[in-house]
Amino acid sequence: MNILGIETSSFSASAALERDGALACEYVFASGPRHNEVLVSVIDRILSDCGLEKKDIDAVCVSIGPGSFTSLRVGVSTAKTLCYCLGSRLVGVSSLEVLAESAAWSGREVRVMTDAGRGEVYCSFRPGGSLEMTEARIVSPEAACERVAGKTVFVGNGASKHAKLIMKKAGGNAVFLPAYLNVPRASACAAVGKRRLESGDMDDPFTLAPFYLRRSAAEERCA
Amino acid sequence: MNILGIETSSFSASAALERDGALACEYVFASGPRHNEVLVSVIDRILSDCGLEKKDIDAVCVSIGPGSFTSLRVGVSTAKTLCYCLGSRLVGVSSLEVLAESAAWSGREVRVMTDAGRGEVYCSFRPGGSLEMTEARIVSPEAACERVAGKTVFVGNGASKHAKLIMKKAGGNAVFLPAYLNVPRASACAAVGKRRLESGDMDDPFTLAPFYLRRSAAEERCA
Repeated sequence: MNILGIETSSFSASAALERDGALACEYVFASGPRHNEVLVSVIDRILSDCGLEKKDIDAVCVSIGPGSFTSLRVGVSTAKTLCYCLGSRLVGVSSLEVLAESAAWSGREVRVMTDAGRGEVYCSFRPGGSLEMTEARIVSPEAACERVAGKTVFVGNGASKHAKLIMKKAGGNAVFLPAYLNVPRASACAAVGKRRLESGDMDDPFTLAPFYLRRSAAEERCA
Repeated sequence: MNILGIETSSFSASAALERDGALACEYVFASGPRHNEVLVSVIDRILSDCGLEKKDIDAVCVSIGPGSFTSLRVGVSTAKTLCYCLGSRLVGVSSLEVLAESAAWSGREVRVMTDAGRGEVYCSFRPGGSLEMTEARIVSPEAACERVAGKTVFVGNGASKHAKLIMKKAGGNAVFLPAYLNVPRASACAAVGKRRLESGDMDDPFTLAPFYLRRSAAEERCA
């Protein structure tokens, strides 16, 4: 099975192809706000390098948020349109789950903190040994590092941004990923989405929408 | 500082750019024996996406082995030639250290096992909390999973290949990475090489050679 992963929830753009359970190809690019310029050409390069055609994509797993408004729209629109055109199955995945996935193998509790603007973070926990995450919330950085018991892995750009606070609150229990692993990767998105696919779950290309948790500044002005 | 990482020790080809301590771009491709076809064009794409020119590469960190004979030659030759042409600093890095790097943040002991052919594995250990690895050796898969005490992360394509044996020997202490993380990544190569650079250590583009541990089949026939 060929699964295409797409991840654009932050200032990185990433696409990856998982082929029969192994990583065939991945591109990660700290694109800033340029997701729209690079995403389709990256997907095309991956398919070409892997000797595949567009019709060979069996499923597309896309990170749906919470995260950056415009960049999520680019990723989700691209995934929906691919599935609409090609008939591939579509699975939307929580961006916080994507970040947790790369640290969860350690068996430790994983706390995901990503920048939500206005001094707040999107936050969700994955207890050690669990596949389930707590409900995503917008909280203060302080609230995200309360009640740490035992070694806990802090991931996401909010964890990097608030590392000093985390170390003050969690002391020797705070574990961090190296910078090059603390990025949302499309390969992790494909891995999380694959579990949903295997349980028979999928989304509708007509109705899948980004998961924002908060309205955009433009929507708030119009409300 | 712009550090280019190059990793071709296995059937994957990978190139990455670390810019001022953050991952700017990475490509990983399960190229099979096609490293030579893709490596330079991947490096060119990464530079172009990052808005950099060749002359902006301050250092090249390359995985030197042990690993696949021909593919190591492609990576090391490319790195040496870049540094010869551009005057960038050159650092050779152990391929086993590259693989260990992506798991070492967990604080657990990491055992790297990569396929050495003939039923054997290249093997090196990184004790929990240490930056140093044991000397690389060629051993039987059985020998590589002796005396496991406490949770131990097994990485490398030898760990995937001999997973059943590892589970039999190490039981509940065996920890594995998800498939998409258990690949040698150029970003990890750049991270390991950067530590050598920071300590003032570097290699000579005229003399750096792949680290094979074993002679190639062709060399053995001529011996």
